[in-house]
Amino acid sequence: MLNEPMPVGSYAVTFTSRLHEDHSGYAELAERMDALVAKQPGFLGVHSVRQGLVGITISYWKDEASIAAWRADAEHLLAQAQGRAQWYAGYTVIVSKVERSYTWP
Amino acid sequence: MLNEPMPVGSYAVTFTSRLHEDHSGYAELAERMDALVAKQPGFLGVHSVRQGLVGITISYWKDEASIAAWRADAEHLLAQAQGRAQWYAGYTVIVSKVERSYTWP
Repeated sequence: MLNEPMPVGSYAVTFTSRLHEDHSGYAELAERMDALVAKQPGFLGVHSVRQGLVGITISYWKDEASIAAWRADAEHLLAQAQGRAQWYAGYTVIVSKVERSYTWP
Repeated sequence: MLNEPMPVGSYAVTFTSRLHEDHSGYAELAERMDALVAKQPGFLGVHSVRQGLVGITISYWKDEASIAAWRADAEHLLAQAQGRAQWYAGYTVIVSKVERSYTWP
């Protein structure tokens, strides 16, 4: 997934987060969400990296409707609420539209 | 930097990379580039996370002209060439335009 350009006009949802020191249970839920998001209509791919408590996850989507559907997914809503209650110290979501992309080599 | 929204209409440059196992000297150059990029006109901020050999760096820019200037910066050009010759197994660059963003809490 890492070495792949994304289509012009597709959307990137960038989720940067900081976890609490104690975030037991988080990895299991994150894994479950990774599996769930991959089945969403309009999902194009994901890049995710975590360094200690700080993580960046970028998911790519065909259109805004796909993003809205994922955001409102029932199991995902529960996970979001649990994340805010238990694991996240803070996060930022940035939605952007792909203008161009290229890979090397 | 992590918990900050970005202005609508600004640009995100997402750089995902995979290093070779032997990447000695890379950290020093990356640090130098971090210091250099922060002085560029139009630079708004950066999020960067590395997990083993895989990294995501997202830099935010006021406009396309700022991105073009940074891409063509002489010292940065040298670093890019050195990266391809010595350190990177592969990378993807995705340029996108910010549509909206929000933070929690």
